[in-house]
Amino acid sequence: MTDSVFEGLNRPIAEMMETQRSIRRLTDRPVDHSIVRRCIELGLKAPTGSNGQNWEFIVVRDAEIKARFARQYRRAWPLYRRTIDSSTPSNARMLDAVQQQIDHFESIPVIVVACLAGGRPTGPYVAKSSYYGSIYPTVQNILLAARSLDLGASLITLPLWSARRSRRILGLPRSVRPACLIALGWPAGRYGPTTRRPVDDVIHLDRWRP
Amino acid sequence: MTDSVFEGLNRPIAEMMETQRSIRRLTDRPVDHSIVRRCIELGLKAPTGSNGQNWEFIVVRDAEIKARFARQYRRAWPLYRRTIDSSTPSNARMLDAVQQQIDHFESIPVIVVACLAGGRPTGPYVAKSSYYGSIYPTVQNILLAARSLDLGASLITLPLWSARRSRRILGLPRSVRPACLIALGWPAGRYGPTTRRPVDDVIHLDRWRP
Repeated sequence: MTDSVFEGLNRPIAEMMETQRSIRRLTDRPVDHSIVRRCIELGLKAPTGSNGQNWEFIVVRDAEIKARFARQYRRAWPLYRRTIDSSTPSNARMLDAVQQQIDHFESIPVIVVACLAGGRPTGPYVAKSSYYGSIYPTVQNILLAARSLDLGASLITLPLWSARRSRRILGLPRSVRPACLIALGWPAGRYGPTTRRPVDDVIHLDRWRP
Repeated sequence: MTDSVFEGLNRPIAEMMETQRSIRRLTDRPVDHSIVRRCIELGLKAPTGSNGQNWEFIVVRDAEIKARFARQYRRAWPLYRRTIDSSTPSNARMLDAVQQQIDHFESIPVIVVACLAGGRPTGPYVAKSSYYGSIYPTVQNILLAARSLDLGASLITLPLWSARRSRRILGLPRSVRPACLIALGWPAGRYGPTTRRPVDDVIHLDRWRP
């Protein structure tokens, strides 16, 4: 592992944001721990509510643990898939990519499980938002760092369908909740750009504009 | 407004992540709409659950709307402040900065309210996580884009203490929920680096290591 691997982290920030996308088709090529560690290290610089820094990250390479998450994913997916309109070409492509990910879940090189320790997503409305607002900025840094290193990444929550079972799989204490999974590996194939709603359609000045 | 304002968006991604921090002391200098718009545009490139792209952003400059959020913030803050241990120097500094932000809330140049349209943070555990996981990656892009432009930014949720009142302030329909506020303005004063827990302390290999 030479330092040149990390040169991608000097790439321009806006370009990295603009070219970020979910990459679900991965090769078997191993991902060195130093790379995963650096992505998480950059993740830690993101803000957390009241600067609580209450994240924990389980870096999963063990085949049996992956297989147990795969079982949860396979169980939850049919229920969820029904809620997605597959008639648009982009949704149809996404559903295919997810199906492929599920079929090959055990061969994903590294899965990072981002967890929150302490606190609970309960209480007044803002408490729930703050709770998850203390992990997803970190997750986004990890995804962007992966992008910058040309490492494929995707954000997944369905394998955590049962919080209790997920905790048991990872041996987590009751005070620690897994929030999401980040699947990491070197991309198989080529990926095009993403499309988004036009920015002026989602901006409202001062008040809601229907 | 010249293009040179946007040159910061070519800065190295890791350096921007490493130097991101909450900046709560802001000058009165106005922030051009083109800057806010560009930050939101980069935000939209972040992932959303099932590619739902169900975000909406209210860009608040109106003094009366700011004053109404300030009232909610002032009401919630004493309740919340009690939960934070003020005996450590870094927490004491944070509490001072937040207090200062509350005292001057009406003079924050721009407040972006990030909202989710449709869906609800209910149902199985993963549904809640996915719900907020569809807005905070976007919020983190906005914060990082602001950092790259040397624009001060901070993530706040307390002014949304009452979801119902927040909706009324912004004229939001029932289907739209505000998730957080991003306060934006040019920084007043100088800001040092942040400190974080050591990365190897928050990484667990395969299973929880107590």
